[in-house]
Amino acid sequence: MARNASLSGFPEWLPEERLVEQHVLDTLRRTFELHGFSSIETRAVETVGQLLRKGEIDKEVYGLSRLQDDDGNAATATKDDPNALALHFDLTVPFARYVVENAGYLSFPFRRYQIQKVWRGERPQEGRAREFTQADIDVVADGVLPFRYDVELALVIAEALSALPIPAFKLRINNRKLAEGFYRGIGLTDTAGVLRSIDKLEKIGAQKVAELLKTELGASDEQAAKALALASIRTEDTSFVEKVRALGVSDELMEEGLNELEQVIAAAVKSAPGSVVADLSIARGLDYYTGTVYETVLVGHEQLGSICSGGRYDALASKGNRKFPGVGLSIGVTRLVARILSQEFAKASRNVPTAVLVTLVDEDSWSEAQDVAAALRARGISTEVAAKADKFGKQIKYADKRGIPYVWFTDDDGAHQVKDIRSGEQVAADPSSWMPPAADLTPQITLA
Amino acid sequence: MARNASLSGFPEWLPEERLVEQHVLDTLRRTFELHGFSSIETRAVETVGQLLRKGEIDKEVYGLSRLQDDDGNAATATKDDPNALALHFDLTVPFARYVVENAGYLSFPFRRYQIQKVWRGERPQEGRAREFTQADIDVVADGVLPFRYDVELALVIAEALSALPIPAFKLRINNRKLAEGFYRGIGLTDTAGVLRSIDKLEKIGAQKVAELLKTELGASDEQAAKALALASIRTEDTSFVEKVRALGVSDELMEEGLNELEQVIAAAVKSAPGSVVADLSIARGLDYYTGTVYETVLVGHEQLGSICSGGRYDALASKGNRKFPGVGLSIGVTRLVARILSQEFAKASRNVPTAVLVTLVDEDSWSEAQDVAAALRARGISTEVAAKADKFGKQIKYADKRGIPYVWFTDDDGAHQVKDIRSGEQVAADPSSWMPPAADLTPQITLA
Repeated sequence: MARNASLSGFPEWLPEERLVEQHVLDTLRRTFELHGFSSIETRAVETVGQLLRKGEIDKEVYGLSRLQDDDGNAATATKDDPNALALHFDLTVPFARYVVENAGYLSFPFRRYQIQKVWRGERPQEGRAREFTQADIDVVADGVLPFRYDVELALVIAEALSALPIPAFKLRINNRKLAEGFYRGIGLTDTAGVLRSIDKLEKIGAQKVAELLKTELGASDEQAAKALALASIRTEDTSFVEKVRALGVSDELMEEGLNELEQVIAAAVKSAPGSVVADLSIARGLDYYTGTVYETVLVGHEQLGSICSGGRYDALASKGNRKFPGVGLSIGVTRLVARILSQEFAKASRNVPTAVLVTLVDEDSWSEAQDVAAALRARGISTEVAAKADKFGKQIKYADKRGIPYVWFTDDDGAHQVKDIRSGEQVAADPSSWMPPAADLTPQITLA
Repeated sequence: MARNASLSGFPEWLPEERLVEQHVLDTLRRTFELHGFSSIETRAVETVGQLLRKGEIDKEVYGLSRLQDDDGNAATATKDDPNALALHFDLTVPFARYVVENAGYLSFPFRRYQIQKVWRGERPQEGRAREFTQADIDVVADGVLPFRYDVELALVIAEALSALPIPAFKLRINNRKLAEGFYRGIGLTDTAGVLRSIDKLEKIGAQKVAELLKTELGASDEQAAKALALASIRTEDTSFVEKVRALGVSDELMEEGLNELEQVIAAAVKSAPGSVVADLSIARGLDYYTGTVYETVLVGHEQLGSICSGGRYDALASKGNRKFPGVGLSIGVTRLVARILSQEFAKASRNVPTAVLVTLVDEDSWSEAQDVAAALRARGISTEVAAKADKFGKQIKYADKRGIPYVWFTDDDGAHQVKDIRSGEQVAADPSSWMPPAADLTPQITLA
C-alpha cells in the first residue's frame, strides 16, 4: 500500500491498515491499564505562552486562528502573544499543565497514560510526520518520587513493546547522573558541552569527537580518551558497572548513577532478556532529564530513529513551592505503524469487522434476517444483513468482495444454514448458539 | 465535578470522568463493529478550499499556520487561500474527501465509523464546545445506495444509544421528500423558504409562523394552515401516514417520502419501542439532506439540542461523473458525556484501572512482588506493586486512597493472602489462579 498522503506529512490509513493501528493502540492501552495507569486526554490546544515556556521549537508549532474575526479579517497567531492558541507538539507539556491545574483532584503518585495526536510543522520525511499519534505513560509525584518507578517503567514499556507486531527492539538505557559524575570526576565540568560532542559519535566518529572535546572544551588527551571510553560501553547485563569502575574514576554522583542504572538494567534484563542494553553513549535527552534516560530502536531499522524515548525529570511541573517529579516514556505510534505497514511486518486477517452476512431469500425476509443478525450479535459476532434479495450468487459475491468469511441462509421453512465461503463447507446452524472458530470471530493481526 | 475548563470551550476530564467517556466510546465502537462498520480516521487538517467548498461557516473554522516561517514572520491562514490549512469542523467533509481519494481501494457500499475530535471557533455555551468528539457512522455507495440502508441506520443508532448510560431518548425522524412533495402539492414551491419558517415553530409559535408563510412566501390562509397541520403530526408508530393522507394532499414525491418514512418508522419502532417518533415538524437539516432525516433529544433535556443527527445525501461526494450517495448519523459524544457527568447519570465504580496492590514485606521482595503481579496480569487483573516497603498500614492506605479494592500480601515463607479492603475480609490465595469477582475486575460504569 505505497499510497502517498494527499497532504504531505499527514498520513491516513485504509480500513485494513487502520485495523493494524487499532491493534497497536488496543495492545498499548491494555498493557498500560493492566499496570494501573489511568487514561486521560488533554485538549489539543494550548496557549502559546504555555507551549513556549521553555523556549522550544517555536518554528514547529502550528498557531491557530479563526479564518475570519467578527470584522471579517483573518487573525494571526504569533509567538509574541502568550494568549494566542496553538496545537500541542507533544503530550508532556500539556500533561504538566494538567497536573498543576488538577493537583487538588488527583491522587499521587499519579499514573497516567495518554494516547493522542500531536502536530509539528516540520519538514516531512520517512518516520517524521506533521500529524502523528503518541502514546505516553508517566508517573508523577507530589514532592518525592521513589527511584523504583524508573525501574518499573522500563518493565512496563518492555512488556508493551514486546506485545506489538514488530521485529526485535533494543531498549537502550543510560543515566544522566552517571555521565555527569564521570565527566566531573575526570575534570570536565561543562556536562552539556561534553554531551553535545558525544552525541555526534555515530555521525563523525571517535577521532573527531576527541578533537571537539579538546578544541572546544579544553580537554586533555587523557580526558578525551576517558570520555570516549565511557561512551563505548554497551552491555546487555550489569557488567557495565565493572567496565566503568575499570576506568578508575571516582565521583559520588557517578556512583549514584551507576547504582541506579544497575537496578534498572538488572530488572529489565530479567523481564525482557535480549531486548535491553545499558548504552553509555546515549547523550540525547540528557539535557532535559535528570536521571534515567531511555530510548528504543527497532533492530535492523536503526535509521528510523527512536520509537520510544523518555526519562526522569526532577520537576515535570511545579506550582509555587510544590514540585512534581516524574518519570515517563513516549511511544511514536505513527512512526511504528507506518513502518509495520510499509515493511508488511503484520497484517489483518480480513478487511472488515464483519464475520457473517445474512442473506435474503426474498425482500420480505429482511425483518427476520435482522432477527437472525441480532441473535448472532448478542454473542459478539459481527453481522451484516444483505440490503437486497439479489440472487444468492450475487449476495455471496458481495461477502467475498468484502472479505466476510461466512454467509447465512434461512429458507422459507425457517431452516438455517451457514456456509464458510473460503472452504465451501455448509452446515445446519442455530442463530442462538452457532459460533465461528475464535480465529474468525474478529479480524486477527498476524505477523508476516 | 463542576470544574471550569481552564480554556473556555475546551473541556478536559479527570481520570474518573474519562472512564465514563471511555465507556461511551467503547460501547459505540463495539456496537458499530458488531454491525460491520470499519474504523477509519482522517487527518485533523484539511485545506481551506476543501472545508469551504460549500461556502459554509467560515467564521467558525480555525486556520492553521506556523508561528514563525523560515524568515521569522508569523504566517496567516485566510479564507482566500484555498491551500491554507485549517482544522476540520465535522467528520462528513473529510470523509467525503477520503472516499473520493481512496475510491479505488474501498469496497462499496462502504460502511465506516469514525470517532474523532473536531473544532469550531464558536462562542462556547452549555452543550457547545470549541473542541469536541463526534462519533459518525455512514454507508456510502458508488452509484446507487438502496433505500434499505436508511432503515438499517435507524436500527444501528437506536441500538447504540440504548446501550449508553443516558436517560430515555427520542429519535425523531422525518423525510425531505414527504415535506417537499406536500408543500408542492398545496402550491408552495419555495421548499427552503417554507422550511425556514417551519423551523421557527418552537421559538415563535404557530400563529407567527403562519404570518411568516403568508407575508414572506405569499401563502394563502389555507396553505399556511395545511403547512402547519403537517408540521403538527407526531406519532410513535406508522399512524402518521393516515394523518397525512387525511390532509387531502396528493403528490408523487410526497407518496415516495411517506412510503420511505413508513418503512423506517415501522422497523425502528419494532427495534426500539418508545424511543422512535415520526416527527413531521423537523425542518433542520432538510436543506442538506435529500430523503430521511434523523435527530435525537434526551427526554427532559430537550434544551441541550440534538445529540445525534443525520440523514440521506444523494451525493455525499462526487468524482467526475461518479456519484457517491450516502446515509449517516453523527453522535455528539462530548455533549453527551458532559451531560452524563454534570447530571451524574452514571459514574465509575472506582477511579483507577487497578484491582490489586501487591505489598512489599521488605525492600528485597520487590522482584518477587513483580512476579506475583505478572501472574495476576496474565489473567487480565490490573495490578500495581508498592514502590516502597512502608509499614503495611501505609501501603493499605495508599490502596485505599487510590480506590484499589484488593491488597496482596506475601509473607517470608512465600504464603499468599489477599484482602478486600472494603470488607476487611482476608483469604489465602494463589497468584496463578485467584480471580476477583467480575464486578471488581475492571471499573464498572454504573447508572445513578
